[in-house]
Parts: sequence; structure tokens; C-alpha cells
Amino acid sequence: MDHAARLHAVRDALVGADVGAVLLGPGADLLWAAGFDAHVSERLTMLVVPASGEAILVVPELEEALARRAGVGELARIVAWDETTDPVALVDAHLGACGASASPLAIQDRIWTAFTLALQAALPSATWVPGSRIMAPLRLVKDAEEVTALRAVGAAIDQVHAQVPELLRPGRTEAEVAADIDALIREGHDATSFVIVASGPNGASPHHGSSDRVLTNGDAVVVDIGGTLDGYGSDETRNYCVGRVDPDYQALHDVLQDAQAAAMAAVAPGVTAHAIDAAARDVITAAGHGDHFIHRTGHGIGLDGHEEPWIVAGNEVEVRAGMAFSIEPGIYVPGVHGARIEDIVVVTDDGAESVNHRPRHVVVT
Amino acid sequence: MDHAARLHAVRDALVGADVGAVLLGPGADLLWAAGFDAHVSERLTMLVVPASGEAILVVPELEEALARRAGVGELARIVAWDETTDPVALVDAHLGACGASASPLAIQDRIWTAFTLALQAALPSATWVPGSRIMAPLRLVKDAEEVTALRAVGAAIDQVHAQVPELLRPGRTEAEVAADIDALIREGHDATSFVIVASGPNGASPHHGSSDRVLTNGDAVVVDIGGTLDGYGSDETRNYCVGRVDPDYQALHDVLQDAQAAAMAAVAPGVTAHAIDAAARDVITAAGHGDHFIHRTGHGIGLDGHEEPWIVAGNEVEVRAGMAFSIEPGIYVPGVHGARIEDIVVVTDDGAESVNHRPRHVVVT
Repeated sequence: MDHAARLHAVRDALVGADVGAVLLGPGADLLWAAGFDAHVSERLTMLVVPASGEAILVVPELEEALARRAGVGELARIVAWDETTDPVALVDAHLGACGASASPLAIQDRIWTAFTLALQAALPSATWVPGSRIMAPLRLVKDAEEVTALRAVGAAIDQVHAQVPELLRPGRTEAEVAADIDALIREGHDATSFVIVASGPNGASPHHGSSDRVLTNGDAVVVDIGGTLDGYGSDETRNYCVGRVDPDYQALHDVLQDAQAAAMAAVAPGVTAHAIDAAARDVITAAGHGDHFIHRTGHGIGLDGHEEPWIVAGNEVEVRAGMAFSIEPGIYVPGVHGARIEDIVVVTDDGAESVNHRPRHVVVT
Repeated sequence: MDHAARLHAVRDALVGADVGAVLLGPGADLLWAAGFDAHVSERLTMLVVPASGEAILVVPELEEALARRAGVGELARIVAWDETTDPVALVDAHLGACGASASPLAIQDRIWTAFTLALQAALPSATWVPGSRIMAPLRLVKDAEEVTALRAVGAAIDQVHAQVPELLRPGRTEAEVAADIDALIREGHDATSFVIVASGPNGASPHHGSSDRVLTNGDAVVVDIGGTLDGYGSDETRNYCVGRVDPDYQALHDVLQDAQAAAMAAVAPGVTAHAIDAAARDVITAAGHGDHFIHRTGHGIGLDGHEEPWIVAGNEVEVRAGMAFSIEPGIYVPGVHGARIEDIVVVTDDGAESVNHRPRHVVVT
């Protein structure tokens, strides 16, 4: 990754938006801009990038070595603070030096509020805008290296789904299956991000994790899993039935599979996020399940597991080649069962490439 | 846990501090107050507790079932929002109903800044204070159930350290050892929080994770590990030497062991955090290593891995029976080696109880 070029792009965006500086704490923005995977903690780590002038990284002294090892010293001046120093004053001092101005300051969306309140108190005349105003447009379109990383992590999660059927046996609990899946994810990823094993009525709770519910013959099971590899996330959902498929479930799943295929087919440069959502939603609504599709169709993915673009009704952003996001419609019948099919796609010049390649039909275990 | 009583305590604290309401997002504050371990995500989950009047939980519709399963419905009215609703407007409307006032609003320290900026825009006349002003004093002193949980998770991490010596063999990498430790942690915990295996010169970087550095005979290795069990964290550091102990390292470690013992002995109700830090620091400084002890002596621990009280120079807070924190002085010689000894202690009526019981001397593997 050419982080110097990325920091240049950040500065250009600041100038273009008339924002005085962007302040980035630990997380994907900082990792993207400067290659530093900083600790999230009560100790302030903050990359301060003014529209013009020197960038600094304010970092706890005990993590200075980590910042230097990551190469931040070549991009910004490192300002290490010891345990009795107020790091907010260091940020304040640097912002003062780069010139008081009427332009707002941008601060990373996901930094802890306590830091923002302290900065607001230290700079009472400043106005603040979300850092995503600067950073999200820069991170939206993935470069070739990032697409390669998304393909690799997509293949890794495919490998896990290929082994799921043998884990889903009557008498096992969701939690036991989830532990096995966790171990399989870690074989091909750096870390597990989440494991959802939602059987029977639990399948109607989209963010169910796993529970002590025991699998029985005929259960439908939603398996939604993801991990990270070299910083980039995987996220893939498939549906399984233990032993046999209930005809009602098969009918519901047929609708869902059509809906997911319709949304995948709708993806192309210039199409709005709203239209992609609608492509899936219209199929489900026409089949009488509109009230059972209780979430958006997808979310962007990259260094964050959920990031822009949001594939949601009302979002008129047009997708562009290189954007990466999930297509994951679901149908949830409270108290009975649920289903969700999810692939990660990258927008191409004329459509979409899925980084996931597992069959999308219900798999009977 | 009696969450109704805890919410009462929150309201009493609001009245006492003349704060109009506290707004809690996903994290330890919400888990402590309402027993809901909510997802951290771009979708707003927020428990709004006014000083008087009804509490509400604003929660994404697709996570409503999780909130109800956690029992939040018995403590607050659940307001589920769908994907095209602005959840900030729901919070705003409820705060309006509980009475516009000159009192500030408190918002959880660790909620993402983007939510706070949106709330500030929606309530332009409100003033904001960190949620920790209300929540930290309530969570500082652990009740009997919490102390039992800290003892249990402390015993679990002791069990892992007992198995570390056999993992530290010449020719293995730090990362290989870390993977083995991760698996051992998960045997006795719900999840791993962190694993530091810092060998040779890497030991001088306190927050080193692990690397491809290969262990060799004579290496000193700092092993700092933790996980969670039933929500509560463990955190224990010991130092190992591969094959043999270098005499310089033994001398340094002797100083450190004396310093850690001095801080442990200093803990008693009424003693300041500053004095506990000084008890360790004075020993290290007297031995000529003052500049090599580059962090505070400790941090509180509970539902958060790092929380108040901070055992740091200048903090004049007096510790009280039931507070739980780490005692973890370290000595770091850049480019050579480092050492840190860490126990979690609970303040008793006349001293401190360590929840960790592994020997504190250097263990030769």
C-alpha cells in the first residue's frame, strides 16, 4: 500500500471540502491512511492531518515502538506522550499551529465520544463534522490490491461453509457447532469476526449468535460467518436443513434465492443503492413476505466489516466499479424460522463479481 | 444481578449530579445497568435513562429479539427502529418529552463519536458531559457477585500461565506460542481478550503482541494474557526465561518483584492511587530504572478490561474495599529486554486480595 499517496488524497479531500484537518483514532481509517493498526483504548492515539502543514501522530509512549515499527514515522511526526501528560492538549497545540480558521474539523466516526468531548472542551470555538465525510469517499472504491484481499478472504470463508454440513447433526447445540466453525474460520483467517448459528425459530432473529438450543431433524439453520485476513473481512450466509427440508421452508427459500439473484443481477456502475435494495425487496414483497424482510439488503465491506455504501432504501448513491458490499436479503417468520443468503460482491465495469462461490440453495445435511 | 436496583442507582446519581439523563450505547455500562450485551455497530442502540420518567431502549428492529431475551423489556420501554428510520430522532423525541432543562446530558464515554455529533446536531441547545461522570462511580466498587466472577476468571488465567513454560522452547516463534496460549485461554474463558508474547528486545515494547521472532536459549519472555468469563476480565503478566536466566535480567527482575510487592503491600482502603503507583515507582527509581518504567502501575478491571480507577501518578482518588485493579509495574530496557509483573487485586477491609496466585519470580523453561 502506498500510504504517502493515501495521505495526499486525504489532504486533497480536506482542501476540497474546506475542512481544516481530520483527526483519526484507532481503527480502519487510520489503518487505511497510515498502515497503523492501533490499540483501541482509553489512551489517546490520534493521527492529526491538517489540510496543509505537518501531520502528527499522538501516541502513548508505551505504544511508540509499535507505531514506529508500522512505519508511521515516515508519514508523520510521532509525538509520544507519557502517562501524566494530557494528550488532548498535544492535539490542541498542533491544530493551533496549523492555523485557527473558520473551517470545521473532521473527527473519525468511530473514536470514543470521551475523546471528542475533551477536544470540544479544549477547542470551544471549533465546529466538528464526522470524519466519514472525508474518509468514506476515499475508502469506497477498492484498489486492485484490496480487491485481491477481498477475493482471498472470500475464498477462505467459502472453505468454512464447505465444511458446515458435517457439523450440523441432530443432538448437537448451536453453541457446539459455533465453536467448531470458529476453529475452522481461524484456520484460514487471522481472526474470527462473528459466528451466527441460528436454528429453528432462532433463525428469525437476524443477529442471533448461538445458544444452547439442540438441533433436531428438520431444523432450518441460518449460518452467517466471517473473519479477517490481512485486515480485510469476509461475510457469507447460507442456509442448511438438518436431515430434511420442510416444504414451507423450501418455498420461502426459493423466493429468497430469487430475490438475492435479482439484487446481484441489478448491480452495475451507475445503479443506485436504493435500486439494488429494491430489486431484492420487490421479489420478497410480491411473494407476500415484505413484512418479514426487516433489514437493508447490504453493507459495504473492507477494512471495516460494515462500512459504506449502505444498500438501503432511500440511499441514492450510485455504485461504481471497485465498490465492495454484501447482498444479503432475508426472510424472518417470527417463532417459526428464517433464512438469509449473503454474498460479498465487487462492482465490475458492467456488473458484479461475487467473491463467494458456495451454492446458494438450501443444503440438506 | 438486580438490574432494577442498578437503574435506580443510576437515577439517584443523575439527580445528585444535576444531570438530565444518561445515554448508554453498547458496552460495559449498558451491560452493567441493564444486562444487555448489545452489538457495537453503525446501527444505534441506546438506553436513555432520564433522571425522572420512563427509560427507553432504542434498538434496531433486527436486534429487538436479543434485547427482549436479555430482559430489557422489564426495565425500559423498547423502541425498535427499522432501517429507514432515524434513530437519533427517536432519542431526541424522548429527551424532549422528559423535559427540556438547563441540566447537561451525559453520554457514554465509549460510544462512537458519529452518534454524539448527530445528537449534538439534533439537540443544539444541550450541553454534554462524559457518561463516566455518572457510571464510573457506580461501577467502581464491585459487589460480592462481581468479586466472585473476578476470582473465577483470575483462577482461569492462572491455569494458562501454569502451562506456559512448556510452550516456550527454542526454535518456536512468538506467534506460534501465542496461538497455543489463545487456545488454552479459550478452554477456561468465554473468549480471549489479548495475548502478548514479547521475547528478547521485544519485551521492551509493553504492548507488543507477538511476532515471527524465533525464541533462542537465554531469551527473556514477557507473557501478558487475558480473557473474559461471564463478562469479567482476567489480566496477568509473568516473565519467563528460555533455558537459563541472564544475571543482568535476574537483577532487573529482582528489583521489579520488590516493586510489585511494595505496591501490593501499599493497597488498603483510604490509600490514594497516586501512593500505590509511587510505592512501585520509588523502588524502581531507587535502583536506577526510573526512566525504564514508562507506564502507570495499574488500571481498574471488571466488565471492561481497562476501567477506573487508574493507578497513576497524580490520581488522588482513595481506593475503597471492593475496588478491583491491576498492579503491574514494568522495567523496559530498549533494544535489550523487558519485564512486567501483573496481578489483579481486590481491595479488602484492611489490604488487598490477589485473584492471581502464580509465583511471581522468573520461571526458567
